[in-house]
Amino acid sequence: MSEIKEGSHILLYQDTRRQWITTASKQRFHTHKGYVDLDKLLGMRYGDIIKTSKGLTLSVFKPRIIDMVQSFDRPTQILYPKDIAYAVYQLGLRPGDTVLEVGTGSGAMTVSIAQAVWPDGHVHTYEMRPEFAEAAKANIAKTGLGDAITQHLKDPSEGFDEKNVTAVVVDLGDPWKMSGSAYRALMPGGMLAAFTPTTNQLEKLVASLRESGLLVVESVELMLREIRGETGKVRPETRMIGHTAYITIARKMLNEPPIR
Amino acid sequence: MSEIKEGSHILLYQDTRRQWITTASKQRFHTHKGYVDLDKLLGMRYGDIIKTSKGLTLSVFKPRIIDMVQSFDRPTQILYPKDIAYAVYQLGLRPGDTVLEVGTGSGAMTVSIAQAVWPDGHVHTYEMRPEFAEAAKANIAKTGLGDAITQHLKDPSEGFDEKNVTAVVVDLGDPWKMSGSAYRALMPGGMLAAFTPTTNQLEKLVASLRESGLLVVESVELMLREIRGETGKVRPETRMIGHTAYITIARKMLNEPPIR
Amino acid sequence: MSEIKEGSHILLYQDTRRQWITTASKQRFHTHKGYVDLDKLLGMRYGDIIKTSKGLTLSVFKPRIIDMVQSFDRPTQILYPKDIAYAVYQLGLRPGDTVLEVGTGSGAMTVSIAQAVWPDGHVHTYEMRPEFAEAAKANIAKTGLGDAITQHLKDPSEGFDEKNVTAVVVDLGDPWKMSGSAYRALMPGGMLAAFTPTTNQLEKLVASLRESGLLVVESVELMLREIRGETGKVRPETRMIGHTAYITIARKMLNEPPIR
Amino acid sequence: MSEIKEGSHILLYQDTRRQWITTASKQRFHTHKGYVDLDKLLGMRYGDIIKTSKGLTLSVFKPRIIDMVQSFDRPTQILYPKDIAYAVYQLGLRPGDTVLEVGTGSGAMTVSIAQAVWPDGHVHTYEMRPEFAEAAKANIAKTGLGDAITQHLKDPSEGFDEKNVTAVVVDLGDPWKMSGSAYRALMPGGMLAAFTPTTNQLEKLVASLRESGLLVVESVELMLREIRGETGKVRPETRMIGHTAYITIARKMLNEPPIR
Repeated sequence: MSEIKEGSHILLYQDTRRQWITTASKQRFHTHKGYVDLDKLLGMRYGDIIKTSKGLTLSVFKPRIIDMVQSFDRPTQILYPKDIAYAVYQLGLRPGDTVLEVGTGSGAMTVSIAQAVWPDGHVHTYEMRPEFAEAAKANIAKTGLGDAITQHLKDPSEGFDEKNVTAVVVDLGDPWKMSGSAYRALMPGGMLAAFTPTTNQLEKLVASLRESGLLVVESVELMLREIRGETGKVRPETRMIGHTAYITIARKMLNEPPIR
Repeated sequence: MSEIKEGSHILLYQDTRRQWITTASKQRFHTHKGYVDLDKLLGMRYGDIIKTSKGLTLSVFKPRIIDMVQSFDRPTQILYPKDIAYAVYQLGLRPGDTVLEVGTGSGAMTVSIAQAVWPDGHVHTYEMRPEFAEAAKANIAKTGLGDAITQHLKDPSEGFDEKNVTAVVVDLGDPWKMSGSAYRALMPGGMLAAFTPTTNQLEKLVASLRESGLLVVESVELMLREIRGETGKVRPETRMIGHTAYITIARKMLNEPPIR
Repeated sequence: MSEIKEGSHILLYQDTRRQWITTASKQRFHTHKGYVDLDKLLGMRYGDIIKTSKGLTLSVFKPRIIDMVQSFDRPTQILYPKDIAYAVYQLGLRPGDTVLEVGTGSGAMTVSIAQAVWPDGHVHTYEMRPEFAEAAKANIAKTGLGDAITQHLKDPSEGFDEKNVTAVVVDLGDPWKMSGSAYRALMPGGMLAAFTPTTNQLEKLVASLRESGLLVVESVELMLREIRGETGKVRPETRMIGHTAYITIARKMLNEPPIR
Repeated sequence: MSEIKEGSHILLYQDTRRQWITTASKQRFHTHKGYVDLDKLLGMRYGDIIKTSKGLTLSVFKPRIIDMVQSFDRPTQILYPKDIAYAVYQLGLRPGDTVLEVGTGSGAMTVSIAQAVWPDGHVHTYEMRPEFAEAAKANIAKTGLGDAITQHLKDPSEGFDEKNVTAVVVDLGDPWKMSGSAYRALMPGGMLAAFTPTTNQLEKLVASLRESGLLVVESVELMLREIRGETGKVRPETRMIGHTAYITIARKMLNEPPIR
């Protein structure tokens, strides 16, 4: 089951900051310390280790979506796992759901949604910048989730063809312009998640969601801190990412909003 | 599609802190401000609003797993959505996966995993305290995900019957005692996530995982801060949860660990 | 030296959340668990312990400014020690300095500045709401730092009489209205610290400081988390204060601002 | 008053990350973009601006202690302003106080304490590593606060000559070894502040303080996040320092500790 074959996706793992995605093939893979002839991986099992020509020990893993996303070509700022994870969970996605994404970017969120709604569900993702759409196309192809994803190269301000979708995800610079069309695309009670780096964007977004008839459930930010767990020396890491994006969660109501 | 029928799960929503899970039925549901006769919900659609006998406006939503979890009976401390979401995403779960959970608790993590592996996958969850297992059973029943979950009322230190599972989740007071049996239950390359409130637990856990042949990918903590997005008055909320649990992510290697 | 006399300030300390400021006198002091006849403190030393009539053990300490501030009457939101401490340090205050404060509030910042510039320096503090000025007056009196403080009951938008002050501290709702008059009151190179709860206030403040010829050194927020240090159970506290105020630090330049 | 003379300390300020401490003199000062002949500063006022030979505009400020500390030679990890500020405020220091410091390090805390107790107070600071003591000596000399500081090149585990000090500050790797001698050196009711990077150190420290008869007021950590206040684009900075040190505050009791 977990035996590696020609074409299998591979994660070569040294440590949290040094890891690479590749494919079992006839190629030679170069690291900062020696190379690996990738056909040596054939017949190995995920979880095995392999040494480079210079003796560096690497673990051989089956890449998860999160591993693939971290190796994505990224012409634009990519969403962080903490934020993707929280949004996916808040949207309550299940296999079979149909999701509309506005702002494909590098495709990190796209494939994470696709994994959650796969195999029967679908993601429709809109992007108006051709170079981003191209990069995302290549990134998506690496994950094997392409069948669950339709890319639309189109200005999202022109509205969406999809109706009655389970959820809408918005990740672009002026999300407040999408609130009305997001409302129309959502099924009653459907969820929306939007990412905004600045408080000014957050402010406009929240106002526009309320005006459009969505109930704003919450806006949050998540701070992730790594902890070093070495025996006798437990402590948080010195450096951390201080800010990525605020996440706003909203829900489509059918009538006027409840009194707040 | 989204029409409410006899027995449909309902989320009656006033605001983030006041929301209730119930069922469309012949019962009368009492709030702090009037009641709702639940049979009035029949034929309504999710996203509609309803008023209580005293005029309080409530939104009527289809509850997500996250909504249900927040209404769970909790004889024990419950995991927070931010932590559940991050662990589920890090585990890379997909429909069809088999997951072993050690420490059912109230079942919040159990149903969140079940949602991710549903409909073909399965969760085996172990709990040795009968009163927790009973509460979890009732909680799980409310979610409709029971078919994807098997509860084992058993001391997890005696080991597990399952082999070759995709992932293991550990949430109990002495997680370091499970590292060896978790290793044996995992498929090669399989993932583990464990939750620990104290740094002493984290320290012992990390050491035991390494001794057992797991590669510790990371230990992290997530801090979630709510943001008030009112126009002209954007600011983080005054109060926040300062700490829930550290999350440790590890991965099964087949041979000796790489040099770190 | 540390013997307690008639009229000495006293901190009766049970734990971090239960502590009271009083005075050695002929009064009887009531706690939630018995009383203390305060004349029993005469002749004791700071650091001693005393028992209430019901056997509760209390430590008897000399109150610091931070202890007194926490017992202040507060008709308005009070600044937190973490923020006061950071601002006082950033202002680089020394004995002998003259400081202008705009927005006395409850006087917590006022007395903290006074302690830093005491005995030769002085604080001029402006407040236009008589009830706040009155409360602050009573609070200041308890600290024994009144000689270093002059209270002005006056609308700060009318400008200040003081010139060439070492530092200006601004803590009121519309701090951007004070930037010009703060500039005029400051000595060249003098420092300004301002507190703003919302990002909208922060935004207007920063713009106005720059327009007025001040160099904005930084805007920051400080998050303080308490850690439980119990042996074998080290962990952050569950609850924390998520937000108090942003602190902006600026400095008066004489000519046009440097290119940024 | 604020006119610059031969030998005056100068802060040349470009922005938060590019600033330099120097002295008005006959020297030439080189930046990454041109030089400044420092005798041109004579007769200027703090707050003026000056241009380098390549046209870079710099502000000319009187350096605060915090500016000087940031330019200190640092053979060892230096404490951060947020932590120094909080400890100084918690210790309740006033002009005239006598403070004992264990672990001089680079002298950053030493001069910050000296500034708070200056001109009549005094800091006795212990350091057993000669190279650190030397670096600290040079750093202290730059601040003009040397008269208020006595450096002891001595193993602090041999105890201290000072008695009845107002406060003790501990910043070294094994602070739990100092709890007994710190207790003996403190006046009754006197305060202690200690810095520990790891939770293991924190745990041992807290236990040793309690055993030695000190009341542990609190252990905390401070997280500082910078906020960009640009109009229309307000947001926290992407990167931040995630961890520096835990700060523990304690107080000397004379008798047995109160029941906790």
